[in-house]
Amino acid sequence: MDQLSERYLEDFVVGQTFGSGRLRIDGERAVAFAAEFDPQPFHLDEAAARRSIFGGMTASGWHTAAVTMRLLIETEFKPAGGIIGAGFDECRWIRPVRPGDELRVECELIEVRPSKSRPKQGMVKLRITTINQNDDPVLVQVANLVVPRQVTIAETTGP
Amino acid sequence: MDQLSERYLEDFVVGQTFGSGRLRIDGERAVAFAAEFDPQPFHLDEAAARRSIFGGMTASGWHTAAVTMRLLIETEFKPAGGIIGAGFDECRWIRPVRPGDELRVECELIEVRPSKSRPKQGMVKLRITTINQNDDPVLVQVANLVVPRQVTIAETTGP
Repeated sequence: MDQLSERYLEDFVVGQTFGSGRLRIDGERAVAFAAEFDPQPFHLDEAAARRSIFGGMTASGWHTAAVTMRLLIETEFKPAGGIIGAGFDECRWIRPVRPGDELRVECELIEVRPSKSRPKQGMVKLRITTINQNDDPVLVQVANLVVPRQVTIAETTGP
Repeated sequence: MDQLSERYLEDFVVGQTFGSGRLRIDGERAVAFAAEFDPQPFHLDEAAARRSIFGGMTASGWHTAAVTMRLLIETEFKPAGGIIGAGFDECRWIRPVRPGDELRVECELIEVRPSKSRPKQGMVKLRITTINQNDDPVLVQVANLVVPRQVTIAETTGP
Protein backbone atom coordinates (compact mmCIF):
# COMPACT_ATOMS: atom_id res chain seq x y z
CA MET A 1 0.00 0.00 0.00
CA ASP A 2 1.25 3.48 -0.83
CA GLN A 3 1.68 5.08 2.59
CA LEU A 4 1.89 8.56 1.06
CA SER A 5 -1.60 8.34 -0.36
CA GLU A 6 -3.19 7.32 2.95
CA ARG A 7 -5.61 9.82 4.35
CA TYR A 8 -6.85 10.85 7.80
CA LEU A 9 -10.22 12.24 8.83
CA GLU A 10 -8.83 15.77 8.43
CA ASP A 11 -8.13 15.08 4.73
CA PHE A 12 -11.76 14.21 3.93
CA VAL A 13 -14.43 16.75 2.97
CA VAL A 14 -18.13 16.29 2.22
CA GLY A 15 -18.64 16.27 -1.53
CA GLN A 16 -15.36 14.53 -2.45
CA THR A 17 -15.89 11.87 -5.10
CA PHE A 18 -13.97 8.74 -6.02
CA GLY A 19 -14.33 6.44 -9.03
CA SER A 20 -13.02 3.02 -10.02
CA GLY A 21 -12.08 1.15 -13.14
CA ARG A 22 -14.30 -1.65 -14.48
CA LEU A 23 -14.59 -5.28 -13.50
CA ARG A 24 -16.40 -7.83 -15.68
CA ILE A 25 -18.75 -10.36 -14.06
CA ASP A 26 -17.74 -13.78 -15.36
CA GLY A 27 -20.67 -16.17 -15.75
CA GLU A 28 -18.87 -19.25 -14.41
CA ARG A 29 -17.53 -17.32 -11.42
CA ALA A 30 -21.04 -16.03 -10.70
CA VAL A 31 -22.41 -19.58 -10.62
CA ALA A 32 -19.55 -20.78 -8.38
CA PHE A 33 -20.08 -17.86 -5.98
CA ALA A 34 -23.80 -18.64 -5.83
CA ALA A 35 -23.14 -22.37 -5.31
CA GLU A 36 -21.06 -21.51 -2.23
CA PHE A 37 -23.06 -18.67 -0.71
CA ASP A 38 -26.47 -18.28 -2.40
CA PRO A 39 -27.40 -21.70 -3.82
CA GLN A 40 -30.86 -20.89 -5.14
CA PRO A 41 -31.95 -22.56 -8.41
CA PHE A 42 -32.28 -19.26 -10.31
CA HIS A 43 -28.58 -18.47 -9.69
CA LEU A 44 -27.38 -21.96 -10.67
CA ASP A 45 -29.45 -23.13 -13.62
CA GLU A 46 -30.42 -21.44 -16.91
CA ALA A 47 -33.92 -22.96 -17.09
CA ALA A 48 -34.74 -22.08 -13.47
CA ALA A 49 -33.36 -18.58 -14.08
CA ARG A 50 -35.68 -18.07 -17.07
CA ARG A 51 -38.71 -19.11 -15.01
CA SER A 52 -37.73 -16.83 -12.10
CA ILE A 53 -38.57 -13.19 -11.36
CA PHE A 54 -35.23 -12.32 -13.05
CA GLY A 55 -36.08 -13.91 -16.43
CA GLY A 56 -32.49 -15.12 -16.91
CA MET A 57 -29.17 -15.75 -15.16
CA THR A 58 -28.06 -13.18 -12.58
CA ALA A 59 -25.21 -12.86 -10.13
CA SER A 60 -26.06 -13.19 -6.43
CA GLY A 61 -26.58 -9.77 -4.89
CA TRP A 62 -23.80 -10.70 -2.46
CA HIS A 63 -21.45 -11.29 -5.37
CA THR A 64 -22.28 -7.79 -6.63
CA ALA A 65 -21.68 -6.41 -3.13
CA ALA A 66 -18.33 -8.24 -2.84
CA VAL A 67 -17.21 -7.00 -6.28
CA THR A 68 -18.24 -3.50 -5.19
CA MET A 69 -15.86 -3.79 -2.22
CA ARG A 70 -13.08 -4.86 -4.59
CA LEU A 71 -13.76 -1.87 -6.84
CA LEU A 72 -13.90 0.51 -3.85
CA ILE A 73 -10.44 -0.60 -2.75
CA GLU A 74 -9.11 0.32 -6.18
CA THR A 75 -10.35 3.92 -5.97
CA GLU A 76 -8.36 6.83 -4.51
CA PHE A 77 -10.43 6.61 -1.32
CA LYS A 78 -7.59 5.41 0.91
CA PRO A 79 -8.05 6.02 4.64
CA ALA A 80 -4.96 5.28 6.74
CA GLY A 81 -5.43 1.81 8.22
CA GLY A 82 -7.65 0.65 5.36
CA ILE A 83 -11.34 0.64 4.53
CA ILE A 84 -13.03 -0.45 7.75
CA GLY A 85 -16.80 -0.71 7.53
CA ALA A 86 -18.93 -0.36 10.66
CA GLY A 87 -22.04 -1.00 8.60
CA PHE A 88 -24.57 0.46 6.22
CA ASP A 89 -27.50 2.81 6.64
CA GLU A 90 -28.97 1.67 3.36
CA CYS A 91 -28.36 -0.89 0.66
CA ARG A 92 -30.57 -1.38 -2.39
CA TRP A 93 -30.15 -3.76 -5.29
CA ILE A 94 -31.73 -1.72 -8.07
CA ARG A 95 -31.21 -3.90 -11.15
CA PRO A 96 -30.08 -7.47 -11.75
CA VAL A 97 -26.42 -8.03 -12.67
CA ARG A 98 -26.02 -10.40 -15.64
CA PRO A 99 -23.04 -12.51 -16.69
CA GLY A 100 -20.78 -10.31 -18.83
CA ASP A 101 -21.84 -7.05 -17.19
CA GLU A 102 -18.98 -4.65 -16.50
CA LEU A 103 -19.27 -2.91 -13.15
CA ARG A 104 -17.62 0.19 -11.73
CA VAL A 105 -18.25 2.32 -8.65
CA GLU A 106 -18.82 6.03 -8.11
CA CYS A 107 -18.57 7.24 -4.51
CA GLU A 108 -19.32 10.51 -2.73
CA LEU A 109 -18.55 11.52 0.85
CA ILE A 110 -21.82 12.71 2.39
CA GLU A 111 -20.72 13.09 6.04
CA VAL A 112 -17.38 13.52 7.86
CA ARG A 113 -17.29 13.71 11.67
CA PRO A 114 -14.99 13.00 14.64
CA SER A 115 -16.00 10.20 17.01
CA LYS A 116 -17.55 11.45 20.26
CA SER A 117 -16.07 8.65 22.36
CA ARG A 118 -12.76 7.85 20.60
CA PRO A 119 -10.44 10.85 20.11
CA LYS A 120 -8.23 9.05 17.58
CA GLN A 121 -11.16 8.04 15.34
CA GLY A 122 -13.75 9.57 13.10
CA MET A 123 -16.60 8.30 10.96
CA VAL A 124 -17.43 9.07 7.37
CA LYS A 125 -20.55 8.24 5.39
CA LEU A 126 -19.81 7.24 1.81
CA ARG A 127 -22.54 6.82 -0.80
CA ILE A 128 -21.33 4.02 -3.07
CA THR A 129 -23.13 3.50 -6.39
CA THR A 130 -22.29 0.43 -8.46
CA ILE A 131 -22.96 1.06 -12.14
CA ASN A 132 -23.12 -1.25 -15.16
CA GLN A 133 -21.80 -0.79 -18.70
CA ASN A 134 -25.02 1.02 -19.69
CA ASP A 135 -24.42 3.60 -16.94
CA ASP A 136 -27.40 2.22 -15.01
CA PRO A 137 -27.03 1.87 -11.22
CA VAL A 138 -27.30 -1.72 -9.98
CA LEU A 139 -26.54 -1.27 -6.27
CA VAL A 140 -26.61 1.79 -3.99
CA GLN A 141 -25.16 1.71 -0.49
CA VAL A 142 -24.53 4.30 2.21
CA ALA A 143 -21.58 2.98 4.21
CA ASN A 144 -20.40 4.06 7.65
CA LEU A 145 -16.62 3.79 7.70
CA VAL A 146 -14.12 4.19 10.55
CA VAL A 147 -11.29 6.61 9.68
CA PRO A 148 -8.34 7.48 11.96
CA ARG A 149 -7.71 11.07 13.03
CA GLN A 150 -4.31 12.65 12.69
CA VAL A 151 -2.99 12.79 16.26
CA THR A 152 -0.04 14.95 17.37
CA ILE A 153 2.84 13.53 19.46
CA ALA A 154 1.50 15.34 22.55
CA GLU A 155 -1.74 13.39 22.26
CA THR A 156 -0.19 9.96 21.79
CA THR A 157 0.76 9.32 25.41
CA GLY A 158 -1.59 6.37 25.88
CA PRO A 159 -0.69 2.73 25.21
CA MET B 1 -36.34 -27.41 -3.24
CA ASP B 2 -39.28 -28.79 -1.26
CA GLN B 3 -42.29 -27.25 -3.01
CA LEU B 4 -44.56 -28.15 -0.09
CA SER B 5 -42.60 -25.99 2.30
CA GLU B 6 -42.74 -22.89 0.09
CA ARG B 7 -44.62 -20.02 1.61
CA TYR B 8 -46.60 -17.04 0.34
CA LEU B 9 -47.10 -13.62 1.92
CA GLU B 10 -50.30 -14.88 3.56
CA ASP B 11 -48.29 -17.54 5.44
CA PHE B 12 -45.99 -15.04 7.13
CA VAL B 13 -46.75 -13.28 10.41
CA VAL B 14 -44.82 -10.65 12.34
CA GLY B 15 -42.95 -12.34 15.17
CA GLN B 16 -42.19 -15.61 13.36
CA THR B 17 -38.60 -16.73 13.94
CA PHE B 18 -36.25 -18.94 11.97
CA GLY B 19 -32.87 -20.39 12.94
CA SER B 20 -30.03 -22.15 11.10
CA GLY B 21 -27.39 -24.72 11.81
CA ARG B 22 -23.73 -23.72 12.16
CA LEU B 23 -21.07 -23.05 9.56
CA ARG B 24 -17.37 -22.85 10.47
CA ILE B 25 -15.22 -20.07 8.99
CA ASP B 26 -12.15 -21.75 7.52
CA GLY B 27 -9.00 -19.61 7.77
CA GLU B 28 -7.66 -20.44 4.30
CA ARG B 29 -11.05 -19.82 2.69
CA ALA B 30 -11.28 -16.47 4.51
CA VAL B 31 -7.90 -15.40 3.08
CA ALA B 32 -8.89 -16.54 -0.44
CA PHE B 33 -12.21 -14.67 -0.24
CA ALA B 34 -10.39 -11.53 0.90
CA ALA B 35 -7.76 -11.90 -1.84
CA GLU B 36 -10.54 -11.86 -4.44
CA PHE B 37 -12.92 -9.28 -2.99
CA ASP B 38 -11.33 -7.39 -0.08
CA PRO B 39 -7.56 -7.51 -0.59
CA GLN B 40 -6.48 -5.37 2.34
CA PRO B 41 -3.26 -6.35 4.16
CA PHE B 42 -5.03 -7.03 7.49
CA HIS B 43 -7.18 -9.73 5.84
CA LEU B 44 -4.26 -11.38 4.02
CA ASP B 45 -1.26 -11.34 6.34
CA GLU B 46 -0.87 -12.33 10.00
CA ALA B 47 1.65 -9.59 10.86
CA ALA B 48 -0.44 -6.87 9.20
CA ALA B 49 -3.52 -8.24 10.98
CA ARG B 50 -1.82 -7.99 14.38
CA ARG B 51 -0.86 -4.36 13.73
CA SER B 52 -4.39 -3.47 12.55
CA ILE B 53 -7.45 -2.25 14.45
CA PHE B 54 -8.55 -5.93 14.61
CA GLY B 55 -5.42 -7.18 16.45
CA GLY B 56 -5.39 -10.45 14.48
CA MET B 57 -6.76 -12.23 11.43
CA THR B 58 -10.42 -11.63 10.58
CA ALA B 59 -12.76 -12.60 7.76
CA SER B 60 -13.86 -9.84 5.39
CA GLY B 61 -17.22 -8.43 6.47
CA TRP B 62 -18.47 -9.41 3.01
CA HIS B 63 -17.46 -13.00 3.65
CA THR B 64 -19.51 -12.91 6.85
CA ALA B 65 -22.43 -11.40 4.92
CA ALA B 66 -22.19 -14.06 2.19
CA VAL B 67 -22.03 -16.88 4.77
CA THR B 68 -25.07 -15.31 6.44
CA MET B 69 -26.97 -15.63 3.14
CA ARG B 70 -25.96 -19.28 2.94
CA LEU B 71 -27.19 -19.89 6.49
CA LEU B 72 -30.45 -18.03 5.81
CA ILE B 73 -31.18 -20.31 2.86
CA GLU B 74 -30.83 -23.31 5.17
CA THR B 75 -33.50 -22.06 7.60
CA GLU B 76 -37.23 -22.80 7.34
CA PHE B 77 -37.81 -19.30 5.92
CA LYS B 78 -38.76 -20.44 2.41
CA PRO B 79 -40.79 -17.94 0.38
CA ALA B 80 -42.16 -19.36 -2.90
CA GLY B 81 -39.80 -18.24 -5.66
CA GLY B 82 -36.80 -18.03 -3.34
CA ILE B 83 -35.18 -15.44 -1.10
CA ILE B 84 -35.16 -12.28 -3.19
CA GLY B 85 -33.59 -9.29 -1.47
CA ALA B 86 -34.57 -5.78 -2.50
CA GLY B 87 -32.07 -4.36 -0.05
CA PHE B 88 -31.36 -3.56 3.58
CA ASP B 89 -32.50 -0.83 5.91
CA GLU B 90 -29.60 -1.49 8.21
CA CYS B 91 -26.46 -3.58 8.38
CA ARG B 92 -23.94 -3.47 11.23
CA TRP B 93 -20.81 -5.53 11.72
CA ILE B 94 -20.71 -5.71 15.51
CA ARG B 95 -17.71 -7.94 16.18
CA PRO B 96 -14.85 -9.32 14.09
CA VAL B 97 -15.21 -12.87 12.78
CA ARG B 98 -12.04 -14.94 13.34
CA PRO B 99 -10.82 -18.06 11.53
CA GLY B 100 -12.42 -21.06 13.23
CA ASP B 101 -15.51 -19.15 14.39
CA GLU B 102 -18.77 -21.08 13.99
CA LEU B 103 -21.61 -18.90 12.77
CA ARG B 104 -25.38 -19.37 12.77
CA VAL B 105 -28.32 -17.05 12.12
CA GLU B 106 -31.44 -16.18 14.07
CA CYS B 107 -34.15 -14.34 12.13
CA GLU B 108 -37.39 -12.60 13.07
CA LEU B 109 -40.10 -11.20 10.80
CA ILE B 110 -40.70 -7.61 11.87
CA GLU B 111 -43.02 -6.45 9.05
CA VAL B 112 -45.31 -8.18 6.51
CA ARG B 113 -47.23 -6.13 3.94
CA PRO B 114 -48.74 -6.37 0.43
CA SER B 115 -47.15 -4.32 -2.33
CA LYS B 116 -49.10 -1.16 -3.19
CA SER B 117 -48.24 -1.32 -6.89
CA ARG B 118 -47.92 -5.07 -7.59
CA PRO B 119 -50.96 -7.17 -6.63
CA LYS B 120 -49.06 -10.47 -6.86
CA GLN B 121 -46.24 -9.33 -4.54
CA GLY B 122 -45.63 -8.39 -0.96
CA MET B 123 -42.66 -7.25 1.10
CA VAL B 124 -41.40 -8.56 4.40
CA LYS B 125 -38.76 -7.12 6.71
CA LEU B 126 -36.58 -9.77 8.31
CA ARG B 127 -34.12 -8.98 11.10
CA ILE B 128 -31.19 -11.34 10.57
CA THR B 129 -28.68 -11.74 13.39
CA THR B 130 -25.48 -13.66 12.72
CA ILE B 131 -24.13 -15.16 15.94
CA ASN B 132 -20.81 -16.78 16.82
CA GLN B 133 -20.03 -19.84 18.93
CA ASN B 134 -19.98 -17.68 22.09
CA ASP B 135 -23.57 -16.55 21.36
CA ASP B 136 -22.29 -13.06 20.58
CA PRO B 137 -23.85 -11.25 17.59
CA VAL B 138 -21.34 -10.44 14.84
CA LEU B 139 -23.64 -8.97 12.17
CA VAL B 140 -27.17 -7.54 12.34
CA GLN B 141 -29.18 -6.79 9.20
CA VAL B 142 -32.74 -5.71 8.51
CA ALA B 143 -33.54 -7.08 5.05
CA ASN B 144 -36.39 -6.10 2.72
CA LEU B 145 -37.45 -9.21 0.83
CA VAL B 146 -39.89 -9.67 -2.04
CA VAL B 147 -42.46 -12.42 -1.34
CA PRO B 148 -45.20 -13.56 -3.77
CA ARG B 149 -48.87 -13.39 -2.79
CA GLN B 150 -51.15 -16.36 -3.17
CA VAL B 151 -53.30 -15.54 -6.19
CA THR B 152 -56.57 -17.28 -6.99
CA ILE B 153 -57.29 -18.74 -10.45
CA ALA B 154 -59.63 -15.84 -11.22
CA GLU B 155 -56.73 -13.45 -10.73
CA THR B 156 -54.22 -15.34 -12.86
CA THR B 157 -55.52 -14.28 -16.25
CA GLY B 158 -52.27 -12.61 -17.29
CA PRO B 159 -49.46 -14.34 -19.26
